[in-house]
Amino acid sequence: MERTLAKEARQKTGRRVRLCGWVHRLRDLGNLTFLMLRDRSGLIQVVLEGKDHPELRQETVVQVEGKVVASDKAPDGVEIQAAKVEVLSAVEYDYLPLAVNSGVIKEGLDTILNHRVLSLRNPLVHGIFLVQQEIVRAFREFFRNRGFTEIHTPKIVAEGAEGGAEMFPVKYFKRRAYLAQSPQFYKQMMVAAGYERVFEVGHAYRAELHNTKRHLNEYISLDVEMGFIQDEHDLMAIENEFLRYLFTVLPERCGEEFAKYGVELTDPGAIPELTVGEAQALLKKEYGKSLAGGNIDAEAEKLLGRYIKAKTGSDFLFLTAFPVAKRPVYAMPMADEPALTKSFDLLYKGLEITTGGQRIHSHRMLYEKMVAFGLNPEDFGFYLDTFKYGVPPHGGFAIGCERLTMQLLNLANIREASLFPRDMERVTP
Amino acid sequence: MERTLAKEARQKTGRRVRLCGWVHRLRDLGNLTFLMLRDRSGLIQVVLEGKDHPELRQETVVQVEGKVVASDKAPDGVEIQAAKVEVLSAVEYDYLPLAVNSGVIKEGLDTILNHRVLSLRNPLVHGIFLVQQEIVRAFREFFRNRGFTEIHTPKIVAEGAEGGAEMFPVKYFKRRAYLAQSPQFYKQMMVAAGYERVFEVGHAYRAELHNTKRHLNEYISLDVEMGFIQDEHDLMAIENEFLRYLFTVLPERCGEEFAKYGVELTDPGAIPELTVGEAQALLKKEYGKSLAGGNIDAEAEKLLGRYIKAKTGSDFLFLTAFPVAKRPVYAMPMADEPALTKSFDLLYKGLEITTGGQRIHSHRMLYEKMVAFGLNPEDFGFYLDTFKYGVPPHGGFAIGCERLTMQLLNLANIREASLFPRDMERVTP
Repeated sequence: MERTLAKEARQKTGRRVRLCGWVHRLRDLGNLTFLMLRDRSGLIQVVLEGKDHPELRQETVVQVEGKVVASDKAPDGVEIQAAKVEVLSAVEYDYLPLAVNSGVIKEGLDTILNHRVLSLRNPLVHGIFLVQQEIVRAFREFFRNRGFTEIHTPKIVAEGAEGGAEMFPVKYFKRRAYLAQSPQFYKQMMVAAGYERVFEVGHAYRAELHNTKRHLNEYISLDVEMGFIQDEHDLMAIENEFLRYLFTVLPERCGEEFAKYGVELTDPGAIPELTVGEAQALLKKEYGKSLAGGNIDAEAEKLLGRYIKAKTGSDFLFLTAFPVAKRPVYAMPMADEPALTKSFDLLYKGLEITTGGQRIHSHRMLYEKMVAFGLNPEDFGFYLDTFKYGVPPHGGFAIGCERLTMQLLNLANIREASLFPRDMERVTP
Repeated sequence: MERTLAKEARQKTGRRVRLCGWVHRLRDLGNLTFLMLRDRSGLIQVVLEGKDHPELRQETVVQVEGKVVASDKAPDGVEIQAAKVEVLSAVEYDYLPLAVNSGVIKEGLDTILNHRVLSLRNPLVHGIFLVQQEIVRAFREFFRNRGFTEIHTPKIVAEGAEGGAEMFPVKYFKRRAYLAQSPQFYKQMMVAAGYERVFEVGHAYRAELHNTKRHLNEYISLDVEMGFIQDEHDLMAIENEFLRYLFTVLPERCGEEFAKYGVELTDPGAIPELTVGEAQALLKKEYGKSLAGGNIDAEAEKLLGRYIKAKTGSDFLFLTAFPVAKRPVYAMPMADEPALTKSFDLLYKGLEITTGGQRIHSHRMLYEKMVAFGLNPEDFGFYLDTFKYGVPPHGGFAIGCERLTMQLLNLANIREASLFPRDMERVTP
């Protein structure tokens, strides 16, 4: 007999079915046992004759055969009246270290992450990664439909795109290499290679000495790079459009998960913009907060998020026109204000989820900029050389996938949005 | 004016258009100049008045405005009669190190890889990665439509799944970690975590001291893991079905690329199978080739591929029933022949492109197997612990994406199927 999933049972009312899954909960009601069965699709109630089932414990993997019967009392309107239950895989634990089957997990984050296989069985936690899957899928769909090519660039690299200090060294045969901080150089090179428009879903590595709620040392970067742009506003426009698309498809594709988290997604519309200069003036005026140079710190991001929400109703805010000193060497300066760059960040609910901008495409300008930055152009050999062979005006951005997931679902810590997070203390499980 | 792509021009015959791209070729014909323009969609001929265009060289990035005119002599049946050509980005090279615009690149592989941005501009090379994109897309579509969840597992790990010798060490803050050889442990854990069916498209790292035409040290692994299976034949069946799907959609989605490579894809049908024992007997009988234990070396793979092609017409061959000693500790032994495992490889045109099999799901059996293998179960803490909490019968496989790409297009070297390959000698570009 073909396997039936929990959520498919209702359509088979009156028929005999075979289900497989985990024992989510057991209740002994006199001469009956209620077994809540959990599979990848959800939960379903199974009624077993008799109360003597010593082979069954919570999380035992079982196969059940029985009849689908309508029942007002069952959570899904149907239950399985079972003739037969078979153990497919027994359990061997003394006790469960966390609550798989009772709503929000009360145990601390360390317990949740140490016992990741168990915490992911909790239906609330399970849903986070269904949402994440749909974010990534929507990202690919959107950019693919606009002529972008999906690429896979190396994560073992000879030098860094964002500066050498915060990279993880790798012993690569007889030499030292590093883990890529971002696909920056490679995605630009792929535009230059004639693909013009590219995107990548891949890991990025930051050896940052941060231990905060919003930092991971290995994260999923949703990268975009696009040739033949006018300026950074083309990039902001396409990111804005992507977010409107995302906020349309997510409720359709995982409405159940958003309902569980009490989140309602509404069209973000046209995202408001502030230059860094305007944002700093506003922070000073409204909150008495002074910031040096082009700095926008984490507290400033939160205040700006709150301010814009109150003023415009928007959860999003573009910050633009970062000073040259705050951006990498490849950031395109403004023609009329060369101390500023054609760059932007995107805040979502007061957290930066994107950095982007137009890049320099002239070999000469990039070379001179490197010298001005105190960098040795020879250290950037193949990247710099690219620009001798005709590179169109281009730019791009990257969205932090876990940050976006976290903010969408209002999670308290970014580690909750990573299956097996890596931070300063954690390389297991 | 909106930009028109080269391949869209034909539909705009008689209209004025704006095109952007690279100067692919320049021909001076007396008082006219023929400019072949290349953009991400292909090539189109542009006719410029006069022969004096010193600003134009091969690979200069230009914008052209002109009228689309039907022309029997133009490769695409239309050409652009241009009023205006504008340089968007100049070139600064002395000479081009390889042939972008004259069919197959004659220069050696090292030149091709050293100047990757240029070699990727060659239309033949360009197509390889359009095909690769479609392989990855079809893989996701197929498994997603069968209830698989896409996952992203860590590549920085504390220990290896396939044995410790061939891993790249990473300096991870104050400790040593490694780059993951495969998502093996994590994809199994995700089945156990209740997702049941998962897939991943991600990098895998092998510090193998191989310098061959078929090895990369960083490659894209198309991973699948599936719970509630009967045995390894469920896995072989779904991989077979995937390949039939792939061979249906690839010609539809990149027929032009396959035509350029002279490759015709036909339904692989039901893939033939041989046990390792049968394959060895056959190699001995047909080719006088003796192999120790359960060994099938690269030459044997080629001979078997040739043999099966001649006998059955199939480019594919499943090898099954590998001995325990040839498989990792987690391979499920056969119940009736415990010296053999429920495992398989898949050969395509005489090259292994997949390894897979059923895994052990009993904590006790896995523990005892580790001891029998001379491994310390304590070294596998979180992985081994998983099996205490109820893990369904499961298994999976992985397809090497570059190997599949290489074999599909009959490329001579796997490095041609990687945008920026990593091998023992190469970490740049």
